[in-house]
Amino acid sequence: MTTVKLITDGEAVADPAVQAVFKDIRATRNSDFINNFWRALANDPPLLKRTWEGLKSTMATEGALDPLVREMIYIAVSTANGCSYCVHSHTAAARARGMTPAQHGELLAVIGLAAQTNHLVTAMQVPVDQAFEV
Amino acid sequence: MTTVKLITDGEAVADPAVQAVFKDIRATRNSDFINNFWRALANDPPLLKRTWEGLKSTMATEGALDPLVREMIYIAVSTANGCSYCVHSHTAAARARGMTPAQHGELLAVIGLAAQTNHLVTAMQVPVDQAFEV
Amino acid sequence: MTTVKLITDGEAVADPAVQAVFKDIRATRNSDFINNFWRALANDPPLLKRTWEGLKSTMATEGALDPLVREMIYIAVSTANGCSYCVHSHTAAARARGMTPAQHGELLAVIGLAAQTNHLVTAMQVPVDQAFEV
Amino acid sequence: MTTVKLITDGEAVADPAVQAVFKDIRATRNSDFINNFWRALANDPPLLKRTWEGLKSTMATEGALDPLVREMIYIAVSTANGCSYCVHSHTAAARARGMTPAQHGELLAVIGLAAQTNHLVTAMQVPVDQAFEV
Amino acid sequence: MTTVKLITDGEAVADPAVQAVFKDIRATRNSDFINNFWRALANDPPLLKRTWEGLKSTMATEGALDPLVREMIYIAVSTANGCSYCVHSHTAAARARGMTPAQHGELLAVIGLAAQTNHLVTAMQVPVDQAFEV
Amino acid sequence: MTTVKLITDGEAVADPAVQAVFKDIRATRNSDFINNFWRALANDPPLLKRTWEGLKSTMATEGALDPLVREMIYIAVSTANGCSYCVHSHTAAARARGMTPAQHGELLAVIGLAAQTNHLVTAMQVPVDQAFEV
Repeated sequence: MTTVKLITDGEAVADPAVQAVFKDIRATRNSDFINNFWRALANDPPLLKRTWEGLKSTMATEGALDPLVREMIYIAVSTANGCSYCVHSHTAAARARGMTPAQHGELLAVIGLAAQTNHLVTAMQVPVDQAFEV
Repeated sequence: MTTVKLITDGEAVADPAVQAVFKDIRATRNSDFINNFWRALANDPPLLKRTWEGLKSTMATEGALDPLVREMIYIAVSTANGCSYCVHSHTAAARARGMTPAQHGELLAVIGLAAQTNHLVTAMQVPVDQAFEV
Repeated sequence: MTTVKLITDGEAVADPAVQAVFKDIRATRNSDFINNFWRALANDPPLLKRTWEGLKSTMATEGALDPLVREMIYIAVSTANGCSYCVHSHTAAARARGMTPAQHGELLAVIGLAAQTNHLVTAMQVPVDQAFEV
Repeated sequence: MTTVKLITDGEAVADPAVQAVFKDIRATRNSDFINNFWRALANDPPLLKRTWEGLKSTMATEGALDPLVREMIYIAVSTANGCSYCVHSHTAAARARGMTPAQHGELLAVIGLAAQTNHLVTAMQVPVDQAFEV
Repeated sequence: MTTVKLITDGEAVADPAVQAVFKDIRATRNSDFINNFWRALANDPPLLKRTWEGLKSTMATEGALDPLVREMIYIAVSTANGCSYCVHSHTAAARARGMTPAQHGELLAVIGLAAQTNHLVTAMQVPVDQAFEV
Repeated sequence: MTTVKLITDGEAVADPAVQAVFKDIRATRNSDFINNFWRALANDPPLLKRTWEGLKSTMATEGALDPLVREMIYIAVSTANGCSYCVHSHTAAARARGMTPAQHGELLAVIGLAAQTNHLVTAMQVPVDQAFEV
């Protein structure tokens, strides 16, 4: 159960701004499927448009990082922030980009280790070494 | 200021368990430098040993993920968990492994985007799409 | 599924302390409905009483902030803390106090933006400007 | 100490993209002051531009929420995410928009209460009441 | 729904490393029951082994803290990190170790209070008193 | 640097409500020292009073949990929430109540382990076992 309605394709027809984003999602992904996140955001067309454009320019363009690496970073942040939906959607996206079980296992190991040492550092209030300065 | 003492090399001499880990850190990293995290953990030798072994086996071995990618995942988790020390130490480690400014910029962009959509999803309580099931 | 029982009206009869709080919740809200949070807290009557009094004095009194604004702040914190129940209950409360879809959309946009810049700041470890000092 | 350099006005001259954003920040805020967040982001001009545009469109436009309310929501999220810099900068911004000590005190009270009940709910795993459904 | 498969006893037979851990879990706990966490981790046998050994040495050995106290600390961290599964499994473990309803109520009260003051401190950015230095 | 002023004893004289709480803190703790948290809260006397009463009734009364155990739970939550001030003040309080280095080491080990498994569970989205139901 959501705190906003999930906008169906039928409802999207009524708003050209929503329709334009839905059309671009389908074209960019070469798939008719639009996942619930965008259907929820469609309640606020400007927020939908800005969020989609932010995601498209950050995740779907060529750049210095491999698209699979970006998805794994996304999973790492989503895990630490406790977002179940995001963990599911970006694990599916990482698999679609070729993530192997061995890579997934190592990703999990690094996430778990980082969380452990993050908490140890905070509990001990370790001061930053001068050697780490830029 | 820390909540525990930082164990100096002089103090480490008194405890063979601490000395053994400090020696292995130096050998593994091929450097005399031991950063504050290990000096703080050295107050509890078994915890020091277990944590170092966990880190060594997760970060320093050959595997399915590039060592630089592991460091970037570490930065992502540490950022979401708000650990300043960890962000500093692993950004330094990522640079030592060749992270370019362009890669760093993309890492930051993905972290920021993920945090934004994590919060939007949680605020709207979006249900997981069946398409994401394993 | 909960980690404690949800105390029914029948069970509340047995404990005057619980009954007194349930009666005050109903009187304050002018409604017979008591939501699950209070039924769970009723396992520990002093905690129930203190929590209800804290909530009543913070949310239900006249003050410097509009009651709707307080509910939106509540949603913001609950989102960042990843509390699904709280997001649901306070979004319902905000709607009951007149939150419009446009206000909800802007609330979501600010929450998402804040999360994004929070993470960017932490990843870059930006020092506080002197201009922000009290 | 930061993990990236803070770009000075002198360094910004070399990059028209950075200069354009710095100029727009100054014009929008009617002030020569550019705070460290933007100087840190300036290491990655496209991220600087996108983040500034996101912030400007979310915080500085007319809309359904009062600008002061938006700043208080920003403070709430930044507090829950543990971002010291953001708490400082947006408390200063809220004061600049007229936040009184009484309003600040109520904001703090709501943030603290929400955090308390968020944790109680999570520890008891309270199920969402049907009454809260959209 | 998980992002990895839950490994059944039948599937565990195929991998001696998984079988060895499952056998040790059963022997250590003197119970045939293996909970889902270990069945999920079994997709990556080395991670399964390391995680189980870390948990066994931290939670199941004699030491300076009572085993029930360790379980309550585990619940506290799991609550603050928003891990539903962990709250459930460690509340069950604490009950199995004798946690009374009165102890559970006090645990909840401390968790809630700590969360409230954590957020108040962060929102006010209170500097550490010299008196707290080691 | 704080976002509110720290109220000195001289300034507290002007407000009987603040004075009353400061007096009770000194009497309850049998010490003249008032730490910065209360001096910051003193900007809002009702919030100061409510917070102090909540803390006093939760931490300073006889009950089912040992006072040292309550302090360790407080440290655990404060660590997971990333509150440096709170980690410092409650580690000092735990030491004042007799926490030994061995107990501190085990507390840290449990906090680190819990954080690690919290993140592993979230990344794998492990479903709650029926055996854990109340």
